[in-house]
Amino acid sequence: MNSRSVLFTTSVLTFILGMGMFAAILVGLSRGDTANALKGFLGSGVICLSASLLAAHLSRRPWNINQIRNSLRYGFLTISLAWFSSILLGALPFILCCRIHFSDAIFEAASGLSTTGASILDSTTRLLGGRTLEGGLESLPQAILFWRQLLNWFGGIGFVMFALLLLPALGGGRQLYNAEVPGLKNAFDQLSPRIATTARIMLGCYVLWTAIVALAYRLGGMDSLYDAVCHAFATVATGGFSPYADNFAHFPKPLTQWICTAAMLISSLHQVLLVKLVFHGRFTYHRDEETRVFFCLFLAATALLTWRFCAVSPSGLTYVNGAPFPGEFEPRLRAVAFHLASLISTTGFTTADYTQWRIPGLSMVVLFFLVTGGCGGSTAGGMKLTRVIVAFKQSLGEIRRKIFPHLMPNVTLNGQRLDMTSVHQCMAFFFLYLASLFLCAFLLPFLSPLAPNGAPLDLETSLSAALSSLSNVGPGLGAVGPSYTFSWFSAPAKLLLAFTMIAGRLELYAFFVLLLPSFWSRQNRAPGMGLRPLATLDGRRSFRRGKAQSR
Amino acid sequence: MNSRSVLFTTSVLTFILGMGMFAAILVGLSRGDTANALKGFLGSGVICLSASLLAAHLSRRPWNINQIRNSLRYGFLTISLAWFSSILLGALPFILCCRIHFSDAIFEAASGLSTTGASILDSTTRLLGGRTLEGGLESLPQAILFWRQLLNWFGGIGFVMFALLLLPALGGGRQLYNAEVPGLKNAFDQLSPRIATTARIMLGCYVLWTAIVALAYRLGGMDSLYDAVCHAFATVATGGFSPYADNFAHFPKPLTQWICTAAMLISSLHQVLLVKLVFHGRFTYHRDEETRVFFCLFLAATALLTWRFCAVSPSGLTYVNGAPFPGEFEPRLRAVAFHLASLISTTGFTTADYTQWRIPGLSMVVLFFLVTGGCGGSTAGGMKLTRVIVAFKQSLGEIRRKIFPHLMPNVTLNGQRLDMTSVHQCMAFFFLYLASLFLCAFLLPFLSPLAPNGAPLDLETSLSAALSSLSNVGPGLGAVGPSYTFSWFSAPAKLLLAFTMIAGRLELYAFFVLLLPSFWSRQNRAPGMGLRPLATLDGRRSFRRGKAQSR
Repeated sequence: MNSRSVLFTTSVLTFILGMGMFAAILVGLSRGDTANALKGFLGSGVICLSASLLAAHLSRRPWNINQIRNSLRYGFLTISLAWFSSILLGALPFILCCRIHFSDAIFEAASGLSTTGASILDSTTRLLGGRTLEGGLESLPQAILFWRQLLNWFGGIGFVMFALLLLPALGGGRQLYNAEVPGLKNAFDQLSPRIATTARIMLGCYVLWTAIVALAYRLGGMDSLYDAVCHAFATVATGGFSPYADNFAHFPKPLTQWICTAAMLISSLHQVLLVKLVFHGRFTYHRDEETRVFFCLFLAATALLTWRFCAVSPSGLTYVNGAPFPGEFEPRLRAVAFHLASLISTTGFTTADYTQWRIPGLSMVVLFFLVTGGCGGSTAGGMKLTRVIVAFKQSLGEIRRKIFPHLMPNVTLNGQRLDMTSVHQCMAFFFLYLASLFLCAFLLPFLSPLAPNGAPLDLETSLSAALSSLSNVGPGLGAVGPSYTFSWFSAPAKLLLAFTMIAGRLELYAFFVLLLPSFWSRQNRAPGMGLRPLATLDGRRSFRRGKAQSR
Repeated sequence: MNSRSVLFTTSVLTFILGMGMFAAILVGLSRGDTANALKGFLGSGVICLSASLLAAHLSRRPWNINQIRNSLRYGFLTISLAWFSSILLGALPFILCCRIHFSDAIFEAASGLSTTGASILDSTTRLLGGRTLEGGLESLPQAILFWRQLLNWFGGIGFVMFALLLLPALGGGRQLYNAEVPGLKNAFDQLSPRIATTARIMLGCYVLWTAIVALAYRLGGMDSLYDAVCHAFATVATGGFSPYADNFAHFPKPLTQWICTAAMLISSLHQVLLVKLVFHGRFTYHRDEETRVFFCLFLAATALLTWRFCAVSPSGLTYVNGAPFPGEFEPRLRAVAFHLASLISTTGFTTADYTQWRIPGLSMVVLFFLVTGGCGGSTAGGMKLTRVIVAFKQSLGEIRRKIFPHLMPNVTLNGQRLDMTSVHQCMAFFFLYLASLFLCAFLLPFLSPLAPNGAPLDLETSLSAALSSLSNVGPGLGAVGPSYTFSWFSAPAKLLLAFTMIAGRLELYAFFVLLLPSFWSRQNRAPGMGLRPLATLDGRRSFRRGKAQSR
């Protein structure tokens, strides 16, 4: 492993981020921001690009290509460094342009890049100098609002993808890729044996899908193309940021909300299936076990909660912007479907405050969807449905082995047997996920003991805030429900949550390996120890989509 | 498998239960119950014994000893049938003698036998005929109160142990044993190669430990030997029933409460270590990894929460019987230590309502202790600390394998390598436990939508009620906190919780196997399929306490 090569890759990513800042400035200027208001933003852009160039200079022609190609540790280190530096730099515009506190800015940038979509921007947000952001979210410069959407979009594809396109000669792509692409690994191998080609296909598909969603929004009721593009960014990335304080309730037309529901669901399906549909014209969703379970869960939960919602029928419900909630069947079905899609896809768009609906069992459904998240190989966060399915099948197998002790353990997905190493990683991930969740939810009340109403932080709030951050969703229950932002948390609590978001986005492993002393031990830098040949990685490949591949 | 042999074993257990009923009647009469009040109880005893004799008659000389010896399925079926019939019969006195509703009586019997200690008996409990139990728990006949304690005590040792003593000729003991003894299996093998001898040692130790605790209570501040014995029953079984409505707050002396704290902790340690201490005079606790972790967790949580408790310092706290809570350091330390010991040992004794202490992080600590439970091989419920340790080590190993893919998975406990089958059963158990918890907490609000204050059931209550039942603890958070009983739940919710308690007491596997269609399939009754030789069981043995054995 060569620390200079890590630095170089990071510089490329930082460069992309800096370019994004200038794009946001241009958008801001074209939408009426004054040049004066954007001085700080321009400063951020300059800092970002300077840092990038400095890093590139420091790392000049440093690498031994064979070393990079073969090091798992290179991948883990790069990905972590890239995320942390991007979040620090991505937070700059909030600090320099809007005078937001450091921890708040870090929270917002981490929330954007990890596609969480939780925000600290409302009228109670305290600024540097003691004033508060009285006008709320919408009083910020347009450039900042667009920057938030851009952070979501960059974070969605895992903007390391961009670097893959720029670094084909480096060859270290596979390690970056494995650490970056969410869900069970190596499912993408089938698209192309070359990582750069795969990345290009994925990126093309991501851009195309964004364009389709934006067009659908524009035709489906949004007044401006700008709105459509902004929300398409947040939708396809399963992010959930919106330039409007009332989030998706800003678009009350049923058609727009139904389009959003569908787009969120599709965005949280396995990306390979979308690539197959778009580029190869093959509709393979119905053959995929995970997709079937995904829709079964979604439809069952929607049906159940809509039925209870219509039965319970409390009066005086409103949307998050205060508009009255009509009492008929369709608005309730739409609201339930919208929010369940938003939760299971880990997007976090909201139109109404579901915590006020008084539907029994809703809290547990919300928690469940927060845990499972979307499908593997998508931009969605959470534990990923594949893992839940694998863990379920494995546990069923272990029950069976209680009466048939000679049975060999065997888990199949899409008709293909999974190798047991992957299954055990899955089970271990389940444990790590819950342990991280517990740790975060345990620390939160110590860092931020009081809820906004002055009462001690309740279990519902701390648990769902931790879970929502870990799964990159956004809203939760209690005092982090759709009616609230995260601005009332204390600064250390915000940093903890930001940290949790990144750990969740990197699926814990990429994060936890950095905590192992053996990761940093000098011994492992010898070629025979830490620097595994690629064959090792391939030998551990397992979660190929078997059936799909053979077609 | 022979259904008649299952019936015969059940009849033995039922006989023991019937004898217990007559013992309770005698205690009741000696403590002032009128014969008239105990008519119903006498009826229950007669029914119980008649059922036992009928079952014994129906199963006369039925078994092929070789079949019984070799069938895992025999063990699972017997244990389930025994528990369900015992709970049905154990509920009879509540129905016939106190005119309590069927679901309430089932709940109370299940809570007693599973050593949960949650009760539905308070002044709001509705009786058959429409009246309520106005005098609360203490207005019940003394025989009934003693019967509750006896249920705890029977449930603690797993009264199948008694049957083991009576059925040495049957030889089916090992299967019963494996299904009954909580925690990781086969840890008891080291005591004696003969199951009957082991059972006799364990039972002797249990009785001796009960006597020691009773004596300590009597000398440590309890006014009567009767009180001491009753609470010793509930303590050593980690049950938590008390004949007094204010539970352990009835004994305000600090010494009594500290004795109880220590007794609860010791009761939830591995029983083999206690046997070694009592019978062999060898103190091996400090050499046991699980015990060390257990005390580290307990002491760390006690220190942390006591510190926060003294810092937060709300006024107006009371014990559960309304007595004022003194503000000094020792009472707070004692209260925290008492309740944490009560939770981690899954006993469920309470003196004060910890949900009113406003300690940040307390809820998460409570949830954590509710999940982990005591040590393996003890009367405690919960997931067992061994499993959490194994899952933690296994997950750590999987993280390490991310950077060293050639590493062989390897989990050690007490310095000995565990075989991977046990580790995988552990991980699967973790998943099954959380899945069961989720399912129960999800169903609860549908069955019982309103909390006692009229608000919809909140997450805190439904989650902790489900967890408390599954882990056989008793109290939880919210509306199942120490100030409440479970009497406000609807009848279906009570049955669900009773069901959850038994599933938790049997450690899920013994319960889930009954749901497998292959368990019931005729094919498995052929000697080659379902009836495994004992060698199979021994081949899967793994969680021996390696070091301890060699000494």
